[in-house]
Amino acid sequence: MNTFGQHIHITLFGESHGAAVGAVLDGLPPGETVDWEAVKREMARRAPGQSALTTARREADAFQIESGYFEGHTTGTPLCVRIQNTDTHSQDYAGWRQRIRPGHADYTAQVRYRGCQDYRGGGHFSGRLTAPLVFAGAIAKQILAGQGIRIAAHIQQIGDIRDDSFRPVGEEPAVLKKLSSAAFPLLHEDRRTAMEACILQAKQEGDSVGGMVELMAQGIPAGWGDPFFGSVESVLATLFYAVPAVKGVTFGSGAAFAAMRGSQANDAWYYEAGRLRTRTNHNGGINGGITNGMPLLCRVTVKPTPSIARVQETVDIEAQTACTIQVPGRHDPCIVPRAVPVLEAVLAWGLLDLYLGSDTYRGA
Amino acid sequence: MNTFGQHIHITLFGESHGAAVGAVLDGLPPGETVDWEAVKREMARRAPGQSALTTARREADAFQIESGYFEGHTTGTPLCVRIQNTDTHSQDYAGWRQRIRPGHADYTAQVRYRGCQDYRGGGHFSGRLTAPLVFAGAIAKQILAGQGIRIAAHIQQIGDIRDDSFRPVGEEPAVLKKLSSAAFPLLHEDRRTAMEACILQAKQEGDSVGGMVELMAQGIPAGWGDPFFGSVESVLATLFYAVPAVKGVTFGSGAAFAAMRGSQANDAWYYEAGRLRTRTNHNGGINGGITNGMPLLCRVTVKPTPSIARVQETVDIEAQTACTIQVPGRHDPCIVPRAVPVLEAVLAWGLLDLYLGSDTYRGA
Amino acid sequence: MNTFGQHIHITLFGESHGAAVGAVLDGLPPGETVDWEAVKREMARRAPGQSALTTARREADAFQIESGYFEGHTTGTPLCVRIQNTDTHSQDYAGWRQRIRPGHADYTAQVRYRGCQDYRGGGHFSGRLTAPLVFAGAIAKQILAGQGIRIAAHIQQIGDIRDDSFRPVGEEPAVLKKLSSAAFPLLHEDRRTAMEACILQAKQEGDSVGGMVELMAQGIPAGWGDPFFGSVESVLATLFYAVPAVKGVTFGSGAAFAAMRGSQANDAWYYEAGRLRTRTNHNGGINGGITNGMPLLCRVTVKPTPSIARVQETVDIEAQTACTIQVPGRHDPCIVPRAVPVLEAVLAWGLLDLYLGSDTYRGA
Amino acid sequence: MNTFGQHIHITLFGESHGAAVGAVLDGLPPGETVDWEAVKREMARRAPGQSALTTARREADAFQIESGYFEGHTTGTPLCVRIQNTDTHSQDYAGWRQRIRPGHADYTAQVRYRGCQDYRGGGHFSGRLTAPLVFAGAIAKQILAGQGIRIAAHIQQIGDIRDDSFRPVGEEPAVLKKLSSAAFPLLHEDRRTAMEACILQAKQEGDSVGGMVELMAQGIPAGWGDPFFGSVESVLATLFYAVPAVKGVTFGSGAAFAAMRGSQANDAWYYEAGRLRTRTNHNGGINGGITNGMPLLCRVTVKPTPSIARVQETVDIEAQTACTIQVPGRHDPCIVPRAVPVLEAVLAWGLLDLYLGSDTYRGA
Repeated sequence: MNTFGQHIHITLFGESHGAAVGAVLDGLPPGETVDWEAVKREMARRAPGQSALTTARREADAFQIESGYFEGHTTGTPLCVRIQNTDTHSQDYAGWRQRIRPGHADYTAQVRYRGCQDYRGGGHFSGRLTAPLVFAGAIAKQILAGQGIRIAAHIQQIGDIRDDSFRPVGEEPAVLKKLSSAAFPLLHEDRRTAMEACILQAKQEGDSVGGMVELMAQGIPAGWGDPFFGSVESVLATLFYAVPAVKGVTFGSGAAFAAMRGSQANDAWYYEAGRLRTRTNHNGGINGGITNGMPLLCRVTVKPTPSIARVQETVDIEAQTACTIQVPGRHDPCIVPRAVPVLEAVLAWGLLDLYLGSDTYRGA
Repeated sequence: MNTFGQHIHITLFGESHGAAVGAVLDGLPPGETVDWEAVKREMARRAPGQSALTTARREADAFQIESGYFEGHTTGTPLCVRIQNTDTHSQDYAGWRQRIRPGHADYTAQVRYRGCQDYRGGGHFSGRLTAPLVFAGAIAKQILAGQGIRIAAHIQQIGDIRDDSFRPVGEEPAVLKKLSSAAFPLLHEDRRTAMEACILQAKQEGDSVGGMVELMAQGIPAGWGDPFFGSVESVLATLFYAVPAVKGVTFGSGAAFAAMRGSQANDAWYYEAGRLRTRTNHNGGINGGITNGMPLLCRVTVKPTPSIARVQETVDIEAQTACTIQVPGRHDPCIVPRAVPVLEAVLAWGLLDLYLGSDTYRGA
Repeated sequence: MNTFGQHIHITLFGESHGAAVGAVLDGLPPGETVDWEAVKREMARRAPGQSALTTARREADAFQIESGYFEGHTTGTPLCVRIQNTDTHSQDYAGWRQRIRPGHADYTAQVRYRGCQDYRGGGHFSGRLTAPLVFAGAIAKQILAGQGIRIAAHIQQIGDIRDDSFRPVGEEPAVLKKLSSAAFPLLHEDRRTAMEACILQAKQEGDSVGGMVELMAQGIPAGWGDPFFGSVESVLATLFYAVPAVKGVTFGSGAAFAAMRGSQANDAWYYEAGRLRTRTNHNGGINGGITNGMPLLCRVTVKPTPSIARVQETVDIEAQTACTIQVPGRHDPCIVPRAVPVLEAVLAWGLLDLYLGSDTYRGA
Repeated sequence: MNTFGQHIHITLFGESHGAAVGAVLDGLPPGETVDWEAVKREMARRAPGQSALTTARREADAFQIESGYFEGHTTGTPLCVRIQNTDTHSQDYAGWRQRIRPGHADYTAQVRYRGCQDYRGGGHFSGRLTAPLVFAGAIAKQILAGQGIRIAAHIQQIGDIRDDSFRPVGEEPAVLKKLSSAAFPLLHEDRRTAMEACILQAKQEGDSVGGMVELMAQGIPAGWGDPFFGSVESVLATLFYAVPAVKGVTFGSGAAFAAMRGSQANDAWYYEAGRLRTRTNHNGGINGGITNGMPLLCRVTVKPTPSIARVQETVDIEAQTACTIQVPGRHDPCIVPRAVPVLEAVLAWGLLDLYLGSDTYRGA
């Protein structure tokens, strides 16, 4: 299932070393003017090859619009984006197909697709498929911005170095704006040195390191989402878990709820200048699966890049024997900085879907 | 959206104080004999009124089968289950509709449903809707058991008291079996006294307390699930987040991945008696969204019951003024023990859906 | 797949001789007041046992609302309706399970459900399942009426007796109103005698007869529906073909288009009192899958009731030998009059789905 | 909704005068080797510019595979096909956007997409979007052929010239094979002269003419499909009605059922050489929405090409005044011959979806 959505649909296609990756976005409202420069900036945030912290693979991630955009606005019919694969070193992958990489989908893809998958560079499981997600999210962000909604994220943790958290009841717009364009977004810039050191240390040791991202969306009106399977948490968790390497998704106070009392966890309602708000925001802007008008807050854990330079123990699934592997290709010692725009993008896309199913859109 | 599923569909209906709650299960394989006593035992695990730790509301949760079961087996056509509401004290809820309960869906339901929702006892948002989920899960467990798959869970944490975690590479069947029938399932029974004390302390103070549940499914073959939106994590997270009060869902090592190195996080492959396994199981049995044959592991955070006896600050949304509220009705000081069978149920249901879409079912 | 819908979902359940049949309607707008007497009238139009023309099985088709209706209006959460089975003569069906009835789903259900289906009275394939469809349609009609949309149908043909057709560019509201409450709706009442004679003749001969129904929906604004798979024709055809015994569905001039010239078939646009209309309406109110503001017109062919009193050639699928069958039970010699309210109902339901996805609803 | 399918998904994109049209096919079984020459032949059957009977627009309909095919077989991940638009004369369409073409989707697209649609050459509503449908169907045909299923169609009618019908209980494989490669497929070749004369007559008069296509699929096992919304008729009708210009879809004896008796319409079962068959096949191989093992038969009515050279009455929707229009561009006087491969293709695609959801695939 490479199609997702209730009120708008995204369909992904492509493999890392095939002709192209891309997506079909079906259900965009007609008449939306897209700021393509802003889309390119989002794509550039995800693109590899930016610094010593990321993979050496360099791709412009130049995209072409196949359909759905005409005379300066969306048509309302499917918008297909195509992102050509250019800097592929497929020969890197020759000769080790049968040695399955630990932490990767090599073995599971082999079973799931009966040995027929394109294994080069992870194929359809590659992080490269997040490029069309970022594209989609960039458009979603623009539509949501038209509704006064702003999305941002920062690196909450890399290794054991932590940034502070968002103020749950809301951040200044300037804070979110600054984060939106940062290559290494932090609430406290002074953590950057330690985090970068942590990453470079891992790199030097032929290793990688994981992290956590905190995301916030401000300006969402109350009433989006549904109880049960269509809860805001269900929709967004589906999308976050669609991103390779994500292994944890929590909302509001998340895991901390386990040790809380109800009297703490219940966010007290009050009116401020005629507007209904909560004094705290442990619930992360969601009650009963539906937005309550407070900032939406979530945290996403990203595991360490499974591609590491070290020799690892594994098996040869053809010979059915033990062997070792040293993963070829060019890899990020820490995927977290590049994951930030991807996670923002899927958050934006999920919110766009919820928006299009809400009374806010009906009355818009 | 009260219908969910890719290869089998569940549709929920009902309100806490309406005529009945129930579900339609569509897509069950024909010819499955259901052990109804086992279903009743699962229902009883969730049912209220069992001890001082749970709500005083007592309901047998007796269910009737409306369709889809004939001559001792499933027919393959929709199985509808109806669970009548009996012990409703609707008058408890009179006169305070406009005072919205903190931590509940009162306000969000009001906006979402334009003031038309059945507000009594949480209406369609009530935990009572988890009864049909447990029913569905009980049937799913039986079908999965026929494939050698066993599901169990334990209370990982209540307040700041923690149980040990599952051994990631697998537990003895006896351990899982014992947990399956326990009212207060723990790996280490000696934590029970402290946890119960924690709950009763909260109760005495008119308060409630949250917790965390760890779940395991053993015996799942490799190859279930899909990349991206149909990942095992996406499917299961959707279902966990469909359960009221859930605010965190992680897989495998979850949040701990943030501080890990790739060389730790990558589970090394090896053959044991000709069977492919991993030495560790940080990935919780899932690579690239697809099961890898190792035990599936996840943790779910449950927030404290929002219904507490204490006076809380809130607003009257009709008068648009501040006020206080003392939530009426009969409530659990800690929902976690009753959440265990519900979370097991949705896990089982999600796995059933994945099974029916897998080559395992094709070849079965 | 017993669930259908894009913007609103209906889920059917039940078997002819089980405990109950029913449906879950999910996505009804909140705040709709239902005229239950009008719903009962629609149910009565479909109910059996009304005259010598229909089956002797008598069932009140009394329904009970399990959820989704509160304080005199829809809540917006799932509305479940339950219709108890009362007048079942299951013993009629004993002893001939293995002799498959020609024209029925006995054999196909046997294969599809691996021999586990409830075979009594057609089980889940029974025309009785159309009772919840009529219920759903009755509610849909009321919501559509609030938008100025009126649906009606008449018997276009029974055997070789034909009624006239609707005036494609529109009928007087009085005409549609009269048809809506007729037990045997005809544009030309003088065809009734011949049609009834045709049915009774078939009945006397232990046989049955087929027919055709023409349906019209007036008042639909332009702009509902989608190109391709979401075309108005696709949506409505899915629903019509979901009704047992339907074997033909055409729109506008239907089969007659084959012999037409483009210059005839193209409906010329013009303004009448500032309102855009077409001079003819061969396209039945639909261009490119989307409503154009003209009356929606379609014709549905209903095959003769397969249950006939005559001895028929068939096989015993257990013994795998030839045999004969004389179908037991009580049956309609012509299902067409009772099919009319069912077809109106699914038309209404399909239009409700299209409405809820349209800009008309957004701006409503 | 440009995505369709239950067990396999197709997503369409593109506009007639945009960069490209195409489709994403998601859910193809892995390991299928595609005969690309056969795909090209199918594409060529639909392609324009073949004779005096079709439009002068010439496009090779060359396609490129973006993903999902590797080392000579399908991978099981999404197969994206891109068909570049080359011979577009967009200037043909300049200056008459506001004059809506009768019989076309110009006005309905305008309302549905709020005036933002790409209007050139019909945009997303263009018959050009059937190219990716033919592509998808060509692959589906190959997979079905591997299961012994053969699909063919012939022109049943053009204007008032009729071909004979298929023998309902089955045709010789040679008959179907011959039809499959014919540019103008007929059971009785001697009707060709009259049909071509009928088309050329219309062309000379600046007009167009409609027709009907009959389709057959042989070799389908019993047990595919579902009751109600997933009936074979519902699935196939959705797909047929997704094809532009289709206005009628019937199965088996179709409209003729209206004048039939049950004793005629019921297809008597018998065993022939141990295989269950019916003596007649009025039901077109479907009982209760499920295939019964007999040939699947359906007829599809195609309206006359709405683009005609004649001056037609219409309106200027900007000025809101009456005007005339002479449709520019290059058009087919009769779309029926080119519709044949398109209708075969969607039939094949629908059958592939049903196959992948059937026990036949499970046991394959």
